Amino acid sequence: MSTKKLLILPGDGIGPEVMREVARVTAWLSRKRNIAFEIDEDLVGGASLAEYGVPIRDEVVEKARAADAVLFGSVGDPAWSHVGFDKRPEVAILKLRQELGLFANLRPAKVFDALVDASTLKSDVIKGLDIMIVRETVGGIYFGEPRGIETLPNGEKRGINTEVYTTSEIERVARVAFDLARKRNNSVCSVEKCNVMESGLLWKEVVTDLHAREYSDVKLSHMLADNCAMQLVRNPAQFDVIVTGNLFGDLLSDLASMLTGSLGMLPSATLGAVQEDGRRPALYEPIHGSAPDIAGQGIANPIAQILSFAMLLRYSFDLQAEADMIEAAVAAVLATGLRTADIMSPGLARVGTDVMGEAIVREL
Amino acid sequence: MSTKKLLILPGDGIGPEVMREVARVTAWLSRKRNIAFEIDEDLVGGASLAEYGVPIRDEVVEKARAADAVLFGSVGDPAWSHVGFDKRPEVAILKLRQELGLFANLRPAKVFDALVDASTLKSDVIKGLDIMIVRETVGGIYFGEPRGIETLPNGEKRGINTEVYTTSEIERVARVAFDLARKRNNSVCSVEKCNVMESGLLWKEVVTDLHAREYSDVKLSHMLADNCAMQLVRNPAQFDVIVTGNLFGDLLSDLASMLTGSLGMLPSATLGAVQEDGRRPALYEPIHGSAPDIAGQGIANPIAQILSFAMLLRYSFDLQAEADMIEAAVAAVLATGLRTADIMSPGLARVGTDVMGEAIVREL
Ligand SMILES: CC(C)[C@H](C(=O)O)[C@@H](O)C(=O)O
Ligand SMILES: CC(C)[C@H](C(=O)O)[C@@H](O)C(=O)O
Repeated sequence: MSTKKLLILPGDGIGPEVMREVARVTAWLSRKRNIAFEIDEDLVGGASLAEYGVPIRDEVVEKARAADAVLFGSVGDPAWSHVGFDKRPEVAILKLRQELGLFANLRPAKVFDALVDASTLKSDVIKGLDIMIVRETVGGIYFGEPRGIETLPNGEKRGINTEVYTTSEIERVARVAFDLARKRNNSVCSVEKCNVMESGLLWKEVVTDLHAREYSDVKLSHMLADNCAMQLVRNPAQFDVIVTGNLFGDLLSDLASMLTGSLGMLPSATLGAVQEDGRRPALYEPIHGSAPDIAGQGIANPIAQILSFAMLLRYSFDLQAEADMIEAAVAAVLATGLRTADIMSPGLARVGTDVMGEAIVREL
Repeated sequence: MSTKKLLILPGDGIGPEVMREVARVTAWLSRKRNIAFEIDEDLVGGASLAEYGVPIRDEVVEKARAADAVLFGSVGDPAWSHVGFDKRPEVAILKLRQELGLFANLRPAKVFDALVDASTLKSDVIKGLDIMIVRETVGGIYFGEPRGIETLPNGEKRGINTEVYTTSEIERVARVAFDLARKRNNSVCSVEKCNVMESGLLWKEVVTDLHAREYSDVKLSHMLADNCAMQLVRNPAQFDVIVTGNLFGDLLSDLASMLTGSLGMLPSATLGAVQEDGRRPALYEPIHGSAPDIAGQGIANPIAQILSFAMLLRYSFDLQAEADMIEAAVAAVLATGLRTADIMSPGLARVGTDVMGEAIVREL
């Protein structure tokens, strides 16, 4: 295999702490499996603001473009919220998504058997749950123009954002959802607010048309976003793949992952379009955020970051055996009863970030 | 007391069925408590479309404006979704909110002790839960311009909606939230997505300023909407009053009410500004929708509609004793073990809409 270029961007908050545990895994891969990557690492988010005064340098965007895959930590340190809207830490991930055209964010909400009790939902409602949310990530209200805050003649201010979706933007993300469904339980639920928003009406039309044209073998349903929020609580097992826009996807995927009780366990992938040279831009990151409230304490769960790396090995580097091994090691460690604070249950052994990381590598 | 004008708008779906049970309560009030209202009733939503070809007639809007309070059922019959965006059933409620300036939707998410088991959440997480969500309802992306679907030169379509909030729109709804908090647990959480949207940034600024100027005795916190969706599942009891915009409020209030396991039990009020003549426009409606899947089967839970009427008596007509009596009757009937399908638990008696309504009036 030709050397694969991997860019590691730990970010701020707990990002650097949990990323450190991935380094144990890459070290193990090179030592025991003779797999070496060309690894580069750089600063983004609060860490980049501290060093360079910007949330992400153009140079880092270019490195990401040149890499075969990006492993991202998390950004959002509120210590930087005063520097202004264009310089907030979050710009790092938003810019990477847009510059690399990473339009499809795949967010699994999966319950790990060993962790059923860590959920606030009753175990019969979530046991075995395995949903995949496909969220559009380069369009919608996140990037639409006009946007901004203006001062009106009467001295009042007015904040504006614009939700925009075009046929092709909707089609390409719906395609990702339908293709995924075919490998899963063959069912897609498309979520919008077509009873209030024309952008949602177009969303529904485009998904319906694409389905009729190319995916009529897949079961398709439609749901309003408010109802979806309720149904995720009432009976999440009714879903297989959910496809939705950027803003609804932000709320619904966080909600869905919290249902599992395993938020600190869940990885995600954000994919772009396959390029002419056959490469496909891809960024992998935990579903959890930068958790500034627990940053620096060594208690964050590194599993979502490690599983994001496993997902990267599987999807971007085609290292199936190694991805399987890492996932199995995580399951084995959980079975021994080790738990970080976020997934703690009475009677089990509470450990910190590094002990969890070490234990996983020892199981490899 | 001068005769109070009440406008009843049952709507479509289960609306008319559950509203029929309110008629038993008004009959009882006039028979036993000698309280008569000037009651008018009219069609909205699917029912109005069937009769008049429009979701709401201007005449009905004028009746609502002239009434002392409006009791609304629900609208959203999907049988009418083909008639076009401007004629969908939902226009009825959207138009009433906007024409009457009903800007503050108060949505309690309250767990009834007798129903703790009906929730999909573990009982220790939700027992005693009592949150109030204050949702802005005449602004934001629901009404912002420009909006629509346009065809681009290349044949693609483009759907657009605009989120807009001004200082005064944010202030007046935040005021409602702070005032409510003072009568509750004195704590407000303001929810937006200020790390992505300038309208959210302005929201946060305006709420912060108003708090500093006039409500510094109330505890204020800020939360991102995606985090709020998670926190509602993780630990809903951390909230007292939540204040948020139209779209986030739509999802978060439905989510919060589903947590309680008592969706079919929860009433809501939508209030306008106090007028020069001292009147305050107000509309009361259940939190649940028109539930087309169970409409016409006589199995819908009428309690949310009856409790919406009790809320109306309390807030618009100052009939505290009667409101108390109705709420007590509902609690008493639940204590006897009667349940509609939505709140059924093993071993209890499952009844239909009318038996539930009769039982409540018998307890009065
Ligand atoms: C950090 C933030 C900009 C981001 C988003 O809103 O997309 C995050 O919440 C996410 O879901 O990845
Ligand atoms: C019927 C619909 C337009 C409405 C809304 O989205 O506001 C409903 O979901 C609600 O929450 O009252």
